[in-house]
Amino acid sequence: MPQTPGLSGVFSPVLTPFDDARRPSTERFVKHCRWLRDQDVGLAVFGTNSEANSLTVAEKQQLLEALVAAGIEPAALMPGTGACALPDAVALTRSAVQAGCAGVLVLPPFYYKGVSDEGLFRYFAGLIDGVADDRLRIYLYHIPPVAQVPISLDLIDRLLDRYPGIVAGVKDSSGDWNNTAAMLERHAPRGFQVFAGSEVFLLRTLRGGGAGCITATGNVNPGPIVDLFRHWQDADADARQAGLDATRAVFQRYPMIPAMKAAIASQSGDAGWRNVRAPLVELTQDQSASLDAELEKAGFRMPDARSLAA
Amino acid sequence: MPQTPGLSGVFSPVLTPFDDARRPSTERFVKHCRWLRDQDVGLAVFGTNSEANSLTVAEKQQLLEALVAAGIEPAALMPGTGACALPDAVALTRSAVQAGCAGVLVLPPFYYKGVSDEGLFRYFAGLIDGVADDRLRIYLYHIPPVAQVPISLDLIDRLLDRYPGIVAGVKDSSGDWNNTAAMLERHAPRGFQVFAGSEVFLLRTLRGGGAGCITATGNVNPGPIVDLFRHWQDADADARQAGLDATRAVFQRYPMIPAMKAAIASQSGDAGWRNVRAPLVELTQDQSASLDAELEKAGFRMPDARSLAA
Repeated sequence: MPQTPGLSGVFSPVLTPFDDARRPSTERFVKHCRWLRDQDVGLAVFGTNSEANSLTVAEKQQLLEALVAAGIEPAALMPGTGACALPDAVALTRSAVQAGCAGVLVLPPFYYKGVSDEGLFRYFAGLIDGVADDRLRIYLYHIPPVAQVPISLDLIDRLLDRYPGIVAGVKDSSGDWNNTAAMLERHAPRGFQVFAGSEVFLLRTLRGGGAGCITATGNVNPGPIVDLFRHWQDADADARQAGLDATRAVFQRYPMIPAMKAAIASQSGDAGWRNVRAPLVELTQDQSASLDAELEKAGFRMPDARSLAA
Repeated sequence: MPQTPGLSGVFSPVLTPFDDARRPSTERFVKHCRWLRDQDVGLAVFGTNSEANSLTVAEKQQLLEALVAAGIEPAALMPGTGACALPDAVALTRSAVQAGCAGVLVLPPFYYKGVSDEGLFRYFAGLIDGVADDRLRIYLYHIPPVAQVPISLDLIDRLLDRYPGIVAGVKDSSGDWNNTAAMLERHAPRGFQVFAGSEVFLLRTLRGGGAGCITATGNVNPGPIVDLFRHWQDADADARQAGLDATRAVFQRYPMIPAMKAAIASQSGDAGWRNVRAPLVELTQDQSASLDAELEKAGFRMPDARSLAA
């Protein structure tokens, strides 16, 4: 049964910082990953909240190499490696496996809509057979609100039948608890690790036998989320969950990615953290001020935030 | 005012043939492009029907180089160069401009949904400023049923204001005639070339002052479509349009891309033409037989189809 040794069960789709020319800022990226690791958060780099599809394959490979060169332990890494073009997914996944990453998080190809399970099966089979490495551990990335291409329960069954051990788990970002519950009931008993796509579902996922969560707000609020993961069987677990939900709700009142970057910019004192790539747009100054005020009121503080500045 | 010299007004999003290992088949690709040019069809290579997003940037660059090396005139080429990652779009667009292509057809970045016009404006501006070549002619690719990210009428206004001459036209694959009509009324008078996204709208588009069409079935039924373009002011134009619609309707009863490939395989005698990349799936043998029978009944025949065989 696949394991992700040394990981806490809480992963963050790591924000990708950019310099003012909108090139990836390797320095800020390494600092942010160190800061997250210090809080025992796993690194799901190149996820939706990482603006991963706004990065080229080469940019992602270079950032991954930089992390490993900086001493980030590969066993803490679960890079997103899905791509519309299968050869791109194979190349990036191979880089991740060769770097020793614990697993990869794989989007379905997301350009064509209404594709068949047979077509998606062939994509994942082509990826696994193309990488052809027993160390490969694939986590399926189910995020229909964005990708618009779902990963069905039947498709997961079929992949588990054909590639047991290699197909290791899922991130369920459907926002539909019933779907997560179905995966926990149907696939978790087969050694399939179910991660909630948001900490809002963390406690329910753990109570249902899931593995943890991979969540955007892990970028800014990692400590309390990891605390719930560690103490989910304690009497105060529901109160902890409510606290997480309240913090997330603040960020969700804004476009999430620019809001998290604005919060880091504000807390670290490094305005360069605000930068995003098109088609995303930074928060306006008014939005930033409003977010800062809300976070201040909620008593939100990122520990040692100055260490995130370039 | 931008022109596409020597082009007939009918473009085909050229199917990308694959060998049995699902690598692009350069030989079949060149043959198909020659066959289309012999019938005066422009080459919108790397479109939706080309499975372009299932190809890597390098694969597209290599196919483009092969066409030019084979003597296909670049002035007949309008490659699709959009990509989720702006640096990919810049690299491929630069290759197209340097090869002398008449224009490029650009998808919006299509991973994030619900993005703002400001974000899309920044993407197109980043592309134009990044390529930084006065020869660039951009055709915007509006295909909300697939990309799920529309190009609004207001965004077109803004791009025309900032980049007159460079922003040259649109392919409207919305399937919504009212939208095409709005572009014809609002943008065509500014020298903006409006192409229908299907020959179903060809006659209406030409009557409304549009430039022609860029259409999937141009791959298999080019002659009659080009004939309507040439004779749209003749008395029999509506009858010609009805004939085109009938042929298209046959293909639309099947998944379009696999169906067109199956038809070419059948007519050329080259079974390798059936191949598609995941997540698409070839027609079943039953579907193929049924399609062949329907096309036979409709008297459909691709002229000189044997020349398309590898």
